[in-house]
Amino acid sequence: MKEYDCWFQEQTEKPCLNAEILSRLFSAGEGAVFNNAVSEYRFILKKSWGLNVEKVNKISAPGTTIGILSYLAPLVTGDVKLPPALPAEGFYIRAGADQLLIAGADERGLLYGVYRFLALLALGGLKAGDEITEAPAGRLRMLNHWDNMDGTIERGYAGPSLFYKDNRIEYDRERIVDYARLAASIGINCISINNVNVRREAKRLITEECLPELAELAALFRPFGIRLMLAVNFASPKSLSTIDSADPLDPAVANWWKEQAGIIYRHIPDLAGFIVKADSEGESGPFQYGRTHADGANMLAAALKPHGGELVWRCFVYDCRQDWRDHSVDRARAAYDNFMPLDGKFAGNVILQAKFGPLDFQVREPVMPLFGALEKTRCVMELQITQEYTGHQIDLCFLPWLWESIMNFDTRRGFKSRIGEMTGKGIEGFAAVVNVGLDRNWTGHTLAQANLYGYGRMIWNPAITAKEIAHEWSGLSFGPGKTAEAIAGILLKSYPAYEKYNAPFGICFMVTPGLHYGPNIEGYEFSQWGTYHRADRNAIGVDRTSGGTGYAGLYSPENAEIFEQRATCPENLILFFHRLDYDYKMKNGETLLQNIYDTHFEGYDEVKAMYDTWTALKGGLDEPVYNSVLSRFERQLSNAREWRDQINTYFYRKTGVTDKKGRKIYD
Amino acid sequence: MKEYDCWFQEQTEKPCLNAEILSRLFSAGEGAVFNNAVSEYRFILKKSWGLNVEKVNKISAPGTTIGILSYLAPLVTGDVKLPPALPAEGFYIRAGADQLLIAGADERGLLYGVYRFLALLALGGLKAGDEITEAPAGRLRMLNHWDNMDGTIERGYAGPSLFYKDNRIEYDRERIVDYARLAASIGINCISINNVNVRREAKRLITEECLPELAELAALFRPFGIRLMLAVNFASPKSLSTIDSADPLDPAVANWWKEQAGIIYRHIPDLAGFIVKADSEGESGPFQYGRTHADGANMLAAALKPHGGELVWRCFVYDCRQDWRDHSVDRARAAYDNFMPLDGKFAGNVILQAKFGPLDFQVREPVMPLFGALEKTRCVMELQITQEYTGHQIDLCFLPWLWESIMNFDTRRGFKSRIGEMTGKGIEGFAAVVNVGLDRNWTGHTLAQANLYGYGRMIWNPAITAKEIAHEWSGLSFGPGKTAEAIAGILLKSYPAYEKYNAPFGICFMVTPGLHYGPNIEGYEFSQWGTYHRADRNAIGVDRTSGGTGYAGLYSPENAEIFEQRATCPENLILFFHRLDYDYKMKNGETLLQNIYDTHFEGYDEVKAMYDTWTALKGGLDEPVYNSVLSRFERQLSNAREWRDQINTYFYRKTGVTDKKGRKIYD
Repeated sequence: MKEYDCWFQEQTEKPCLNAEILSRLFSAGEGAVFNNAVSEYRFILKKSWGLNVEKVNKISAPGTTIGILSYLAPLVTGDVKLPPALPAEGFYIRAGADQLLIAGADERGLLYGVYRFLALLALGGLKAGDEITEAPAGRLRMLNHWDNMDGTIERGYAGPSLFYKDNRIEYDRERIVDYARLAASIGINCISINNVNVRREAKRLITEECLPELAELAALFRPFGIRLMLAVNFASPKSLSTIDSADPLDPAVANWWKEQAGIIYRHIPDLAGFIVKADSEGESGPFQYGRTHADGANMLAAALKPHGGELVWRCFVYDCRQDWRDHSVDRARAAYDNFMPLDGKFAGNVILQAKFGPLDFQVREPVMPLFGALEKTRCVMELQITQEYTGHQIDLCFLPWLWESIMNFDTRRGFKSRIGEMTGKGIEGFAAVVNVGLDRNWTGHTLAQANLYGYGRMIWNPAITAKEIAHEWSGLSFGPGKTAEAIAGILLKSYPAYEKYNAPFGICFMVTPGLHYGPNIEGYEFSQWGTYHRADRNAIGVDRTSGGTGYAGLYSPENAEIFEQRATCPENLILFFHRLDYDYKMKNGETLLQNIYDTHFEGYDEVKAMYDTWTALKGGLDEPVYNSVLSRFERQLSNAREWRDQINTYFYRKTGVTDKKGRKIYD
Repeated sequence: MKEYDCWFQEQTEKPCLNAEILSRLFSAGEGAVFNNAVSEYRFILKKSWGLNVEKVNKISAPGTTIGILSYLAPLVTGDVKLPPALPAEGFYIRAGADQLLIAGADERGLLYGVYRFLALLALGGLKAGDEITEAPAGRLRMLNHWDNMDGTIERGYAGPSLFYKDNRIEYDRERIVDYARLAASIGINCISINNVNVRREAKRLITEECLPELAELAALFRPFGIRLMLAVNFASPKSLSTIDSADPLDPAVANWWKEQAGIIYRHIPDLAGFIVKADSEGESGPFQYGRTHADGANMLAAALKPHGGELVWRCFVYDCRQDWRDHSVDRARAAYDNFMPLDGKFAGNVILQAKFGPLDFQVREPVMPLFGALEKTRCVMELQITQEYTGHQIDLCFLPWLWESIMNFDTRRGFKSRIGEMTGKGIEGFAAVVNVGLDRNWTGHTLAQANLYGYGRMIWNPAITAKEIAHEWSGLSFGPGKTAEAIAGILLKSYPAYEKYNAPFGICFMVTPGLHYGPNIEGYEFSQWGTYHRADRNAIGVDRTSGGTGYAGLYSPENAEIFEQRATCPENLILFFHRLDYDYKMKNGETLLQNIYDTHFEGYDEVKAMYDTWTALKGGLDEPVYNSVLSRFERQLSNAREWRDQINTYFYRKTGVTDKKGRKIYD
């Protein structure tokens, strides 16, 4: 495995389909993405299997035919049957005895079909006669970059930015193309390229000063079916014009944005739109002018509308100057309370982007109650690929494990149900802060590439399981076989292990403030951030039931009832919803406290087991990959030990109760 | 009061001595400092009282005679008797009916005598017939700057550096002269001008690249009797030469330092020497080469010796990678354990600089046991004027209150006794990180000027009281009178108030890690820094008696006995030495817990009282000074409230015991 190549490795085995079929290529279609699909087919077969693909000018057998459905339909004859239609961005693959056919609903569909076919080829699972039809569940499949123009990345753990350096746009064209390939191959169709906290120089990205360079960047992504999106500062008119306001109802402000949008779209005609973090954590927004989020979003959306752009408005809005003394305020309610009353008030090209949970990408949170509740507002769900609270790409934490549980969450609201099933309906798609940087292996921890891969796969098809993703990614990255199976096994153990040694049972925020790595059990306890656990000598947790902050009641009545009751509340979230005495009896018959001790001892032991599994793989892995991952596991062991011991000591000091099994808890 | 002028204010009253006497000046002596003493006499009489001082060429009455004792002795005749001798840097002042006489033991002594006389004149307390003889207790009276070359100041709370900007030496000459005046007027004779953490560009300060500019800076301080000192990086040969070592026993290393010292002294012939932080908090040092601190210090001292330079070696050495689980290690022991075995091993021009307490400038610590124990090693005590742990010059905290208690600490060792009495004997002097920056008022909080003033006064004369200093400073800064008395009253209340709302009873380190402002009660509890309180549901504190870490035993037997016993241990340090149950009965008959509650309620109330006293002064103060101090008091109130409530809530949660007096403790 070469770490840079991710899931496009050089193959040692021959392809599982006849090389003669693969190396004669007929294609039908047109457009930049179509051309690139053809080119990618040839490039990867050459790179991975050393096959030279010859272009032929008619459909032939043995041979391969790829194209856009509408172009292929009149040309394909004989036994081969094309589907009469395909959903947007979908594809059809047919591996015949002497013919391979890949048809795309459109240019992107073809590109995705090509990548999917090549992945299946690498996995060795294709055989003659196989037919595959796929289409993405959601329309918007986005990566968010939190890259700053000084080259740093907010919550980035894999080196500097791919796009910026020293307050300039500066990038390696070849690397951008490689990144675009990685993204497109997992179905990404939109990338926002700057931090939603738009500060300093980044404010000028939407001006003539930077737009020509951004247009060049857009041109690199375009053949991969990826449109750029820009994060904009709501107060831009104040810093970029002589207008001393950003009031969305001020005609001068609205006009400035209209004109600015015109300038931007002259440079990047297919820009996907803007993404905005407003009235959040110190960022400017409509509240400052006594306006609503709808006022703010609609004004910007109107500026984008003539150009076909969309406005993504983040729902991460809460009181970040909260007084810890005040138990009546509950940050978990904030997004719902802020946005639910506005349902139906947003313009047609506004999309709300809400984090999957009500707090902030904690290891375990319930799904945000806005999903399923919003009925007249377009929305996307935000996940997080970069491991902000999940180990900084030092600790291994295979996130599709979490995402699978999110996709399976049943909102139990009206016509909608599971998040996965709502995708493409109530939820238009997904966004996520990505985990890549200039590190040679893209993601710091080489195995964290699986999170990027898994994100694309899961939002393409929310019915996929974490297990399927783990095996697929491992097979592609390490070649199918025992090693890949062992690595998939490690991946699948990693999330439960991480969850066990972290903040217990959905309590959240026992992490080091600011840094968000490692334990600091009371680190947020008296802060302004609204994230408290209120542990005392007898009990822990915030009562979010009807007897407390009422947060549980924001869900559908059935879900509210489930969360309200201790007996029915899922135990991995029980401390999110309930304040419990340490001697509360959990389902396994042990006390809450003993369960905290048990999970923390287990969490560490499971990291040790992953470490041991990894060291047993030594001979079968490329040395640099082996060593780099090993050093991360060593750091993870140390981190897991801190979590285990600090959490256990903390609760031991609070309760004076020793571990039932007599294991060492420090005093 | 003009904030920039500190204790050199324009006077509204006429001087309390006859202007005719003051304005005819005869002087005898020579040298740059002598000339400056004459010049300062004239400058300040003009600036403060508008008096033009005429120089006359013989002693006359009415008139003033100032000079160096040896020059004056042959000239003074008649009734006036000069003392036959004066200790180094001392002075003699005699206010006769028609003659004023100021004689210095030497140039510096004269300068100090002039400043002292002018201060007494401003305070209005001089009368004909008064005779004053003074000399400093300690030889080395140093200010340390922790200024970085990028213009920032480590632990600086009063704006950017006076000396550096954008990685260059850059300063306002006039401001440096004003600073030199302030420093000299309180007896400072040495200033180290760069951070002891010598990083990046600062490593080049000792090279030809920077020395010419430093020489110019030295020339500005020289007429004020102030010598510069440089902080050097122990690993300099590695970064500045081709020698790939800093091993103090490597002849190439020693030689490099000899040559470098030669270069430095060609530029600044009166450089006081080097100050070094080695093997501490990540800084390089002799340990890396298996050598001792004596090896390291002596090698550098040898390089300085030919030039008359001294080597100040900091004792702030401890394991900053401590494991919180390990109760056997006690950081409080570190300086003693590291340096006591080396007593007698240091070269004659090495001076150890040890912080006043065994930890790190906490609000309350016992005096470091090295003082009095070191018998064959020269040493200075390090205080801290910059308010790192004492309120960041946002909160008012009059430090002479603390220093007075340090000066009064009786080491009860052999021929030595109280710290104050040992000054000039066992303790050669003092150093302290200063609290000034480019803020117009020098110290951020205008009233924090009192700490700079008080430092100089107290190390000059350790028998002075905080009360005397407070009244003297207030009188000089605000003009003698009711306002000054009220302000002195505020100053004198400020330390006890600060101590009350902070970490209780000598427990230390409940402050926000890194920042060192505001509470974070468990912030250091599981860290690597060795500063733990180990509070559990029943008890708090580290047992540092013979039954615990044995730290108390490092003191003289009498002191050890006092600290060992709960009954005799001073209560403001009881949690430094003892682990106590919350229901431990304190001397006032209340439990430890109730005492914690009480002190924290009182601390806040006392800040409120200071605030009220200040607002009552409104009419009598210059508006800008009033407002700027008021805004600090507002922030202090908020900080004191956080300390009060977080501490009280923390212990309430731990114990479940409510306040006896029924005051509000949040849950």
